[in-house]
Amino acid sequence: MFRNQMPRFEVLSEGALETVDRGWRRLVSEIGVQFDHPRALDLFRAAGCEVEDTLVRFDPDFLVEQAAKAPREFDMRARNSEHDLHIGGDSMIFAPTQGPPFVRMGGTRRDATLADLQRFIMLTQMSPELDTPGGGICEPNDTALDSRHLAMNMSLILLCDKVFEGVPMSEVAAADSVRMGEILFGGREAIEERPVMFANVNVNSPLRYDVRMLEAMLEFSAANQVVMVTPFLLMGAMAPVSIGAALAQQTAEVLAGVALLQLVRPGAPVVMGSFLSSTDMKSGAPAFGTPESAIGLYASGQIARRIGLPWRAGGGTLTASPAVDAQAGYEALNTLMSAFLAGANVVWQSAGWLEGGLVACFEKFMMDVELLKLLRVQLAPTVIDEDALAFGAHKEVGPGGHFFGCEHTLAHFRDCFYRPFLATTDNFDRWSGKGSPTAAVRAEGLWREALERYEPPPLDDGVREELLEFVERRTRELGDDPIDLGIPPQAPPAAAA
Amino acid sequence: MFRNQMPRFEVLSEGALETVDRGWRRLVSEIGVQFDHPRALDLFRAAGCEVEDTLVRFDPDFLVEQAAKAPREFDMRARNSEHDLHIGGDSMIFAPTQGPPFVRMGGTRRDATLADLQRFIMLTQMSPELDTPGGGICEPNDTALDSRHLAMNMSLILLCDKVFEGVPMSEVAAADSVRMGEILFGGREAIEERPVMFANVNVNSPLRYDVRMLEAMLEFSAANQVVMVTPFLLMGAMAPVSIGAALAQQTAEVLAGVALLQLVRPGAPVVMGSFLSSTDMKSGAPAFGTPESAIGLYASGQIARRIGLPWRAGGGTLTASPAVDAQAGYEALNTLMSAFLAGANVVWQSAGWLEGGLVACFEKFMMDVELLKLLRVQLAPTVIDEDALAFGAHKEVGPGGHFFGCEHTLAHFRDCFYRPFLATTDNFDRWSGKGSPTAAVRAEGLWREALERYEPPPLDDGVREELLEFVERRTRELGDDPIDLGIPPQAPPAAAA
Repeated sequence: MFRNQMPRFEVLSEGALETVDRGWRRLVSEIGVQFDHPRALDLFRAAGCEVEDTLVRFDPDFLVEQAAKAPREFDMRARNSEHDLHIGGDSMIFAPTQGPPFVRMGGTRRDATLADLQRFIMLTQMSPELDTPGGGICEPNDTALDSRHLAMNMSLILLCDKVFEGVPMSEVAAADSVRMGEILFGGREAIEERPVMFANVNVNSPLRYDVRMLEAMLEFSAANQVVMVTPFLLMGAMAPVSIGAALAQQTAEVLAGVALLQLVRPGAPVVMGSFLSSTDMKSGAPAFGTPESAIGLYASGQIARRIGLPWRAGGGTLTASPAVDAQAGYEALNTLMSAFLAGANVVWQSAGWLEGGLVACFEKFMMDVELLKLLRVQLAPTVIDEDALAFGAHKEVGPGGHFFGCEHTLAHFRDCFYRPFLATTDNFDRWSGKGSPTAAVRAEGLWREALERYEPPPLDDGVREELLEFVERRTRELGDDPIDLGIPPQAPPAAAA
Repeated sequence: MFRNQMPRFEVLSEGALETVDRGWRRLVSEIGVQFDHPRALDLFRAAGCEVEDTLVRFDPDFLVEQAAKAPREFDMRARNSEHDLHIGGDSMIFAPTQGPPFVRMGGTRRDATLADLQRFIMLTQMSPELDTPGGGICEPNDTALDSRHLAMNMSLILLCDKVFEGVPMSEVAAADSVRMGEILFGGREAIEERPVMFANVNVNSPLRYDVRMLEAMLEFSAANQVVMVTPFLLMGAMAPVSIGAALAQQTAEVLAGVALLQLVRPGAPVVMGSFLSSTDMKSGAPAFGTPESAIGLYASGQIARRIGLPWRAGGGTLTASPAVDAQAGYEALNTLMSAFLAGANVVWQSAGWLEGGLVACFEKFMMDVELLKLLRVQLAPTVIDEDALAFGAHKEVGPGGHFFGCEHTLAHFRDCFYRPFLATTDNFDRWSGKGSPTAAVRAEGLWREALERYEPPPLDDGVREELLEFVERRTRELGDDPIDLGIPPQAPPAAAA
């Protein structure tokens, strides 16, 4: 796990922070937040909040008190203890993109399938830079909708031993996800003691939680699993066209959701989510990797630290580009670098995101893993001690010489610098001789090779059987025919297509 | 001009800074710096330094005293006073790439020509994000070597009214550059009063200044023009494979050069240059946009502020990529963002750099101008006041609504967000319908269109005549035939090729 020991990049003055504070307080008390679920309304009513139809108006201080019940930092348990996670403080974890209905592979764009999802899970398992696969790295469109969550969870468990995300799409999906966590980790008590899965829920911004999200939130928090409450704000669409207003709204929405979860289970682990970008005001299309999105990240980090909650930054390696081109390169780095600078604890959408999130792209996935590797080196503490001065090298080389063959270079050349796996330093002749492959073309070779090397993590036979039986039974109960996941025990599935 | 009012990103502890301090002090006093010019050696000898053959060993405190004579901040005069520059403090200026022998245009790579240089100068004149063209944005290989500096300077003056760089390649080139500045600005006294041109000189690292660089440095500083003393350090080649060692060496080299210039003319304006990256230790090729290069930038900024000199960051929008692809996108942003974070005052190589600096690329130029525009918005102060909270918009829209048509959006949609000129937010169908143009393809259209709109800046007829006569006479004196620059008075040259 990466520890972010660098200075935080803070752009809001104390005065600006106080203005945002006044903003969310006014929103929750004067306008209120809509909750489309009777249990949520009951909980708020019982806690003394003003409930009118489905609209809840809050005393702002009540929300602050509830947020204070959530842990500032907490641990999560992975099947492989080497992949246990610490959330909050200066720790930073990364997950690939989540949710795209399409994939892009070798320049072809098409509907995503379960086999694609499995490929992405395998690549995540093989990438030390990714701490969790999350859940639906892409949407397995070729599986039945009602039982899709079972195929997704089972693929995650069979192919990866990192903490994963349960499926928060409905009460049924949430309950089945929690049950599979119980089977995998030895029962309800075990997973309540230390959470084993995430659930990211997006607010129906502005200021509304719909019934499906609420059902899932209540289910996961009751089981003490980690709920990330994430307003998805495209300014101009789900928020006003002003960063200040969007930050106030984001804070209001997060605090209202977090308060509900603390009423369900005081002390339940939560993450303040954020996903703030702008709309292209000419076309109405979402824009990513923009200045406003970066400023939103810097500011959200400050607000999260002020509130005292672990913070999920959106994103990621975001881009609106439809191709793995120069725009995709700089927009992705701009959001990812900003997430580091802002001190994010959880970064979803860190590998594979393309075309404004509609596409999970295999080549972009590899590029993004390179960016993660690179920034983890770049933003690690720089130690300069007497030894680092290498005075002996200067004595050996002297004015006008070169350091290629000197003793200090020979002793350190293997590990003195970051070694990229995607970036090339080939000269023009060498590069032309290889057919002038762009970064996107090289990336295709890299993921295909990686999948050839994939090995599934071990899983206890009894646990595997119990999970497979559960999935088969629940699939039938939900009215679908059980499917072959295409994952033989202890052997890799057919890799590259 | 951009004022960088954001927090500086500082990565070196006080202890690390002191270690670098000890490092350069030991280098200059125990190893020394080689100066291949009798006048330089005389000046150092007269100042009491220990001179042995061409090697000068310094009392470190003497170097600190000399550096203190240089101004911490100063102004430069442009022909168009709207383009006057302030160097140092929180001001930041940007120049395009300098020196590549090749150009890349629409996917074709070939030798650079004078016409290419002129196109780049025109694009610089049209880009408010670029404060100066520098000088040789690419190398005009089709001009005679001895008189090339005359063709370059004349093109710069005819096509652009921003501060430019004189040619520092030899004593003759430097003297002619200064003389042209005198003609343009009304005499020696005028340009000595307020400098009108830059000269960037690269140290022959490690620890050596060669005769040509010294001749140019002495000439420019005698005329009170701005000399940027820039160690060009690729760790593994011109410096040890250690950031600490490279920083100590860089500081030693800069301070020795700056001391010489202060002996020539106390108070002469200088810029501490830096250009620090790593070598690919497998191939020996230079690498750019790397973590080491970014760390070098953060650290160099801290050192420059400690010394109290304006600081030139290298770079820029650097990349080792041979194509305008995803690698070029993220490497360029990584160096440019780092230069902003590090608080650079002068950023050379900010537009067009490709293939490790061997190529000036027209498409990359446009991409880089987009990055400059974007970061200037992203890294400007965020003001959040009561008005920015847009509470009225929330009252109008309410929970679950959208902000597309609300009053606040209609009032602000034109200027609320950064509007990219290269990045696309087109959806897949629209983008495919246009032929799936990557950022590089779109960039080609942009620079060709821009050149069609170019208009040359006004220039006094008498001054123009005097300059043209000077150039013609000097070209003959240097043994070459005068050439037609292809720039008719007050009319644009043939633009796109």
